[in-house]
Amino acid sequence: MSRPSPTSTAARRGRPGYDQEAVLRRAIDLFNRRGYDGTSVGDLARELGLTKSAIYHHFPSKSHLLQAALDEALDALTAVIDAAARAERGGGTAYARLEEAVRGSVVVLVEHLPAVTLLLRVRGNSEVEQEALRRRRRIDAALAGLVRAAAEEGALRTDIPPDLATRLLFGMVNSLVEWYRPEGRYDAAAIAEAVTTLAFDGLAPREA
Amino acid sequence: MSRPSPTSTAARRGRPGYDQEAVLRRAIDLFNRRGYDGTSVGDLARELGLTKSAIYHHFPSKSHLLQAALDEALDALTAVIDAAARAERGGGTAYARLEEAVRGSVVVLVEHLPAVTLLLRVRGNSEVEQEALRRRRRIDAALAGLVRAAAEEGALRTDIPPDLATRLLFGMVNSLVEWYRPEGRYDAAAIAEAVTTLAFDGLAPREA
Repeated sequence: MSRPSPTSTAARRGRPGYDQEAVLRRAIDLFNRRGYDGTSVGDLARELGLTKSAIYHHFPSKSHLLQAALDEALDALTAVIDAAARAERGGGTAYARLEEAVRGSVVVLVEHLPAVTLLLRVRGNSEVEQEALRRRRRIDAALAGLVRAAAEEGALRTDIPPDLATRLLFGMVNSLVEWYRPEGRYDAAAIAEAVTTLAFDGLAPREA
Repeated sequence: MSRPSPTSTAARRGRPGYDQEAVLRRAIDLFNRRGYDGTSVGDLARELGLTKSAIYHHFPSKSHLLQAALDEALDALTAVIDAAARAERGGGTAYARLEEAVRGSVVVLVEHLPAVTLLLRVRGNSEVEQEALRRRRRIDAALAGLVRAAAEEGALRTDIPPDLATRLLFGMVNSLVEWYRPEGRYDAAAIAEAVTTLAFDGLAPREA
């Protein structure tokens, strides 16, 4: 529960037992269980056995909690895209970059499962959610670009259009938030290996 | 919007323009947009320009609306499983039954997209939702059994465990509720073809 946050939120400390990071973890869990709109700062305070003002000591508002959670997921996914862009400048195939991006995405989903779960349920009901959706669309567009580039290299089968391949590939990756449980049998590396072997063997060019 | 319902709800008629089926369609859309818990019968009445009592003429309560919606999705998915069971009694391979179940599931998701979207978001907050989750678990168990049987026939690769293959396969299928749009480029048959070719080529036994 005390995993370091990629945001700058981990430093400040308030009451013993609940630093800013711990409050954020519990808030994300509560938002995922009850829905963000259905959860008040009062609910979170009760869940933690704190006063509302103790929560406000760490986060000025409920939407600051949401923003920190969505930034955690989006920063981690953006790092996957940035790594692919760096790899492109270093040469190598789009296919290899795509495979690395799929592996990287699986690892991000497993390591930031609650935050990514929250991100994937965002519907755009506020400015914070709208901005998160804009960032998510940029990430999705970059991933779709990688699939197109791999297709143009001739590395993918031609009977599944690249846009549909993108949806199915990242649909499979994103489905992790529905069924992956950290206490289960498989770790991030095992899931990433299964996803990439299934998907890339499934997307491989067919012999005529 | 006036697609026939597989439930017995389509017959009764109330105000002109809103028969029971039309009320149900709009309720499902509203539940998906705002969340079931966040939507009241008053909200639905306002959306339709009706009084609450006009809604109650068709459905005695909000949970009856939810039940009708979830039954629509579950009845259609159960029909896919029942077809696989009938095919088993008629002989043939588990692999062929699994492929048919995947195709059938895609078609159900496309044809009942709003109802299945609602089903896949159910978290068990009421007895109606708990019962829907029980029915969903039975369907998932039947699908997992088909994957195991196909694996035991030697029809699937051995380096991805059958339970993980089940998750990835139906994770890809279920992801349709996140990205499929009826007004888009692909119809149910095209999506079903892409899913089955990608998944079954990806899950095919590898040459040593």
